[in-house]
Amino acid sequence: MSLDFTAIATQFVAHYYSTFDSDRKNLAGLYRDNSMLTFEGAQSLGAQGITEKLTSLPFQKVKHEYGPPDAQPTATGGIIILVTGQLIVDDEQRPLGYSQAFQLSQDASGQWFVFNDIFKLVLL
Amino acid sequence: MSLDFTAIATQFVAHYYSTFDSDRKNLAGLYRDNSMLTFEGAQSLGAQGITEKLTSLPFQKVKHEYGPPDAQPTATGGIIILVTGQLIVDDEQRPLGYSQAFQLSQDASGQWFVFNDIFKLVLL
Repeated sequence: MSLDFTAIATQFVAHYYSTFDSDRKNLAGLYRDNSMLTFEGAQSLGAQGITEKLTSLPFQKVKHEYGPPDAQPTATGGIIILVTGQLIVDDEQRPLGYSQAFQLSQDASGQWFVFNDIFKLVLL
Repeated sequence: MSLDFTAIATQFVAHYYSTFDSDRKNLAGLYRDNSMLTFEGAQSLGAQGITEKLTSLPFQKVKHEYGPPDAQPTATGGIIILVTGQLIVDDEQRPLGYSQAFQLSQDASGQWFVFNDIFKLVLL
């Protein structure tokens, strides 16, 4: 069966940002102990460290808006995703541009999780 | 020996864009037959297909300017890189924002090559 990587990426991205925007501590379930996050150059490791980083970001409300993700399969059964979009935090009028690259992997039970996560703001 | 993925990523990115900006047909050596490019949503496969795509882009001169790349190791010995920057084509006054994600892999001789390449313009 060939991997429908675009469908998996699209579904993942929708789930990721809707979880991020509603209650970001629930993102913990999308990472594993060996997952990596680079957020604006700062590195966090593992589901717990990554969730602590994401929940400590200094805003209360956030909304991501993004275009269709681009996805490619990797040589080892993973999926690379690149998303670009804008986010609006709290009551700021001006959205912030961002880019985010993910590599998804499957765990032993076949569930997709985030192995690599790199987030960068894009200054407009 | 631990992988100095940040140094490899930084060196790769400098080489990649300097080659792109001077004579982009020479990028062929950085891809392999199973490499993938998604350029503004259009997919190309293999060093030859990718080089044809890159050399057919409708500009004569191009210059990339970019910040320090972010990099992470993958579970299988590769390196994921995210770059954001601006490019100036021909005599346009206004730079175009872009984001580009790479996965580098090593071939049997230990040489790094681009397995995954996703390029997106970021509309400012």
